[in-house]
Amino acid sequence: MSPADNTANLSFPHQHLLGIEGLKEQDITCILNRADRYAEQNRKTNKKTDILTGLTQINLFFENSTRTRMSFELAGKRLGADVINMSVAGSSIKKGETLLDTASTLNALQPDLLVVRHGSSGAVKLLSRKVNCAVLNAGDGTHEHPTQALLDAQTIRRRKGKLARLTVAICGDVLHSRVARSNIHLLNIMGARVRVIGPSTLVPASLASLGVEIYHDMREGLRDCDIVMMLRLQTERMQGGYFPSISEYFTLYGLDYDKLSVAKEDALIMHPGPMNRGVEIDAAVADDLTRSAIQEQVEMGVAVRMACLDLLTQQKREQEMGR
Amino acid sequence: MSPADNTANLSFPHQHLLGIEGLKEQDITCILNRADRYAEQNRKTNKKTDILTGLTQINLFFENSTRTRMSFELAGKRLGADVINMSVAGSSIKKGETLLDTASTLNALQPDLLVVRHGSSGAVKLLSRKVNCAVLNAGDGTHEHPTQALLDAQTIRRRKGKLARLTVAICGDVLHSRVARSNIHLLNIMGARVRVIGPSTLVPASLASLGVEIYHDMREGLRDCDIVMMLRLQTERMQGGYFPSISEYFTLYGLDYDKLSVAKEDALIMHPGPMNRGVEIDAAVADDLTRSAIQEQVEMGVAVRMACLDLLTQQKREQEMGR
Amino acid sequence: MSPADNTANLSFPHQHLLGIEGLKEQDITCILNRADRYAEQNRKTNKKTDILTGLTQINLFFENSTRTRMSFELAGKRLGADVINMSVAGSSIKKGETLLDTASTLNALQPDLLVVRHGSSGAVKLLSRKVNCAVLNAGDGTHEHPTQALLDAQTIRRRKGKLARLTVAICGDVLHSRVARSNIHLLNIMGARVRVIGPSTLVPASLASLGVEIYHDMREGLRDCDIVMMLRLQTERMQGGYFPSISEYFTLYGLDYDKLSVAKEDALIMHPGPMNRGVEIDAAVADDLTRSAIQEQVEMGVAVRMACLDLLTQQKREQEMGR
Repeated sequence: MSPADNTANLSFPHQHLLGIEGLKEQDITCILNRADRYAEQNRKTNKKTDILTGLTQINLFFENSTRTRMSFELAGKRLGADVINMSVAGSSIKKGETLLDTASTLNALQPDLLVVRHGSSGAVKLLSRKVNCAVLNAGDGTHEHPTQALLDAQTIRRRKGKLARLTVAICGDVLHSRVARSNIHLLNIMGARVRVIGPSTLVPASLASLGVEIYHDMREGLRDCDIVMMLRLQTERMQGGYFPSISEYFTLYGLDYDKLSVAKEDALIMHPGPMNRGVEIDAAVADDLTRSAIQEQVEMGVAVRMACLDLLTQQKREQEMGR
Repeated sequence: MSPADNTANLSFPHQHLLGIEGLKEQDITCILNRADRYAEQNRKTNKKTDILTGLTQINLFFENSTRTRMSFELAGKRLGADVINMSVAGSSIKKGETLLDTASTLNALQPDLLVVRHGSSGAVKLLSRKVNCAVLNAGDGTHEHPTQALLDAQTIRRRKGKLARLTVAICGDVLHSRVARSNIHLLNIMGARVRVIGPSTLVPASLASLGVEIYHDMREGLRDCDIVMMLRLQTERMQGGYFPSISEYFTLYGLDYDKLSVAKEDALIMHPGPMNRGVEIDAAVADDLTRSAIQEQVEMGVAVRMACLDLLTQQKREQEMGR
Repeated sequence: MSPADNTANLSFPHQHLLGIEGLKEQDITCILNRADRYAEQNRKTNKKTDILTGLTQINLFFENSTRTRMSFELAGKRLGADVINMSVAGSSIKKGETLLDTASTLNALQPDLLVVRHGSSGAVKLLSRKVNCAVLNAGDGTHEHPTQALLDAQTIRRRKGKLARLTVAICGDVLHSRVARSNIHLLNIMGARVRVIGPSTLVPASLASLGVEIYHDMREGLRDCDIVMMLRLQTERMQGGYFPSISEYFTLYGLDYDKLSVAKEDALIMHPGPMNRGVEIDAAVADDLTRSAIQEQVEMGVAVRMACLDLLTQQKREQEMGR
C-alpha cells in the first residue's frame, strides 16, 4: 500500500482552491484519491450523487471558456448542486460595477461555491477575501489554473501509477501559461522532474527559479521523457515578435513523430485543449489514441472538479448534519 | 384497437436519431405512442419523471435556435437528466477547433445524449461516429430535422386519428427546407399522400424523386387537402433572385382564407414557427384557433423529444438496472 | 402579535404579479411573511425545498439583467422547479416574431411560471393575457419592478421592524425609474411617508399625484429620514440635457456623509445596484457596512422571489394534490 492510500479519507484543510502553490503533497493526493472514485462513478449510466443537494454553485466567468465552464457545471450538477452560470458579457460589470462590488453582490446570493475565471493574475484571490464561500480558481491571468494541473496529474497517475520520479517535459509558451505554472508547482510538490522547452522568448532563463530545467531544443528536452505536455500556442502572441511564422514554429517546436522519437517509447502525450493542429502539434500525433491522453484529460477534468467541490464543502456539510 | 397500439411497448432499435429516412413505420409509431404518454404528463402540474436521473444531456448548437434548444432542454429536465447547453458562439470552436475534436472532447465528458444542430448537411452524422452516446439531430443544413417531423406527425395523428391516406400539402421553400424533407420521408413511410407547392425555383421538378406530387399553383395544390403545412420563408433567399418581392410572394403563395377555401373544410393548418405574418401566412389565418394547430405543434415538440430521449437511452438504462 | 402575523397563512389571491399598484396591505404582508421563512432557509447549507418539483419556470428577458435573472433562477431552483432561461439576443424574436406570438409559443411549452423583463411599459401585462400560467413582472419599461419594491420592503421591515410611519426618501432619476414607481406604490400602501428628491428635470412636480412630497434639495429632503433609497443614475440620460456634468450631479445629489448628516442617526442606506460610485453615491458611504443595507437587499431578493413563486402556484399545486 502506497503512502497515498493512507490519505484517502483525510479532509482537505483549505477554505479555497486558489492555486497549487502552497499545497502539500497530501492535499494533492487527497484530491486525486477522491477524484478516482468520481472517475468510476462517471463511467456508469447513473452518474449522480446527492451530496451537494441544496447547495448553490455560481460559475463566474470574466473570460469565455466553454470547455472549463461546462466541466465545472457538469461536476456540480452530478453532485446535486444548483448551478448558476454568470458570464460577464452583457452583465452589470459592463455597466461599470467594480470586481469587489460584484463579489459582494454574488456573496449576498449565498452561494456555497464560487468558480471564477478572470483575465488578471490575482483577481480570484482578491475576490475570495470578499466572500464567505469556497472559491475555486478556474484560471486567473498568467498565474494559476489549479484544476487543470490536478486533472493532468490524475491522468498521469492513472497511466503511470505514480507521479514521483517521472520526467515531464512542458513545451511551448511556458512564460504566459497558467497551465504550465500550476503544473510546475504540482509536479515539483509530487517529486517529478520538470523540463520546460521552447524558444528563449517564451522560455526565458528566469523560469529556472521555479525549479525546472530549461531547454530550447525539442530533441534535447524530450530525450527520455515519460510525459510530453504540449501547451496551446496563443497565435496572437506570434504577432508580438516571438517568432517569424507559424510554420517555422511548427518546424522547431511542433510535436511530430520525429521529435517524439527521442522520448521514452511509452511516453504519454498531453494537451490542455483546444489544439491547434499543425501549430504546436501534428495532426497524426494528436489522433494517436495509443500515445495521447488528451481525451482522458477531459474525462478526468470532471472527476477532479467533483472532488474539489466535494472536499471544499465537506466541513460545512458535516457541521449542518451534526446540528 | 389499431395496429399502432400493438407497438406501444416495442423498443426503439436505433442507436441515434439522425433522420427520418431509413426508419420503419413501427419505429415512428413507437415514438408517437410514447410521446402520447408524455403529452398527458405535460398537462399536469407535476410534469416530472426521474427516468433520466443521473444521465447527462448536452445540447450542442452550432446555429442559434432558442425554440428548439428550449424544447430539448425542457424535455431533458422533465425526465430528470442533467442538461448542459453549449452554444458555439464564444466557444473554443471559434478558436479553430475542428468539428471532430469538439466531438471527442464532448464525448470525454461522458454524456448519454447529445443533441446537435449544425449548419452543414451531414455534420451530425459525421459527429455521431466519434461518440459513444446517443445523438439526436436537431437540424443539419438542408438535410433533416427529424423531431420536427415527428412532432408534426404527432399533432396530425391526435387531430385526425391517423396519418395513412391523408393528403398533406407542404408549401413554400421546399428545396432548402430540412423540415420539409423530414416530413416528406415520414409521411411517405406512414402512407400519407404528399404534395409540395411553390414556385419552380423553390419547388423544382427534381423533388418528384422524393415521392411527392409537384404543384406551382396554390389553388391546385391545396384542393381537397387534409393538412396544409406552411414553411417559413427565409427572406434572405428572396435576394437570391427567387422572387421579385415579398408582396408578390404573399399574393401567389401566402396562405389566406381565399386560397384555403379549396382545401377540405376541416383542413388543419400547420407551421413550424416562427411565422412571418404577411409573408407566407396571413395574420388572420395564423390566429384562427379552430383551424390552426400551431400551438399544439409546439406542445407536442416537448412530448416527442421526451419520447426520443427516453427511447434512445432505454436499453442502456435497463442494462444498468440488470447489473 | 402584530396584525401582519395574522396573515402568515393567508393565500395570495392574484393570478399574476404585474405590479405593486392595486395590491392590498395584506397581499404585501403575505409575501413578506412567506419571504421571512425563505430568508431563514437560505442561510442554511441545504437551501432546498421541493415544493415546485415538476413545475416549469421560464425566465424571458428582453433586456439584459444578469443580477435579476440570477436571483429569479436561484429562487426557482431552490424550490425545485425546472428553470429555463430565454434571452432574446439571438432568439427568433430577432427574426421578426411578434411579442404575442412569442407568448403563445412559450405558453405551449406549458410553463407554470413566466418571469418577464421587457423594455416597454405594459408589455408584461399584454403578454400575461395570452398565457395560462402565472406571470411575474421582472421590470417593464418605466412602469413597475414589483419584486424590487418587495425586497426593499422586506429589508426595511427586518431592520426597522415595520414599514408604517417611516419616512423614506427616494433620490435621483425618479421620473424614469420603475424601481421608484413600485416602491412609491408599496410604501404608500403600507403607510410610510414618501419623499422624492432630485433635480426638477428628473423629479417634476407632476409626481405629486403619486402621493409623494417633492424636494429638489438633498439636505431639505433627507432631514429626519429613516430610509435613504438611492437610484442608479442612467448616465446616458445625462446627455439628454438633464445636467451639465456627472461631477455637478454628484455635488448636488450624490449621497455623501455630509448630506447624510441631516437624516436620522440610524438612517438606512439602500441602493438597487449596480452602483455608480462617485456618481449617485460616494464610495465610502456605499461601503459603510453599519449603515448600508445594500447586501441585505440582494439577499432578500432571492427570498422574496421564492415567496412570490411559491404563492403564485400555491392554489394550482393544492388542486393537483387534492385530485
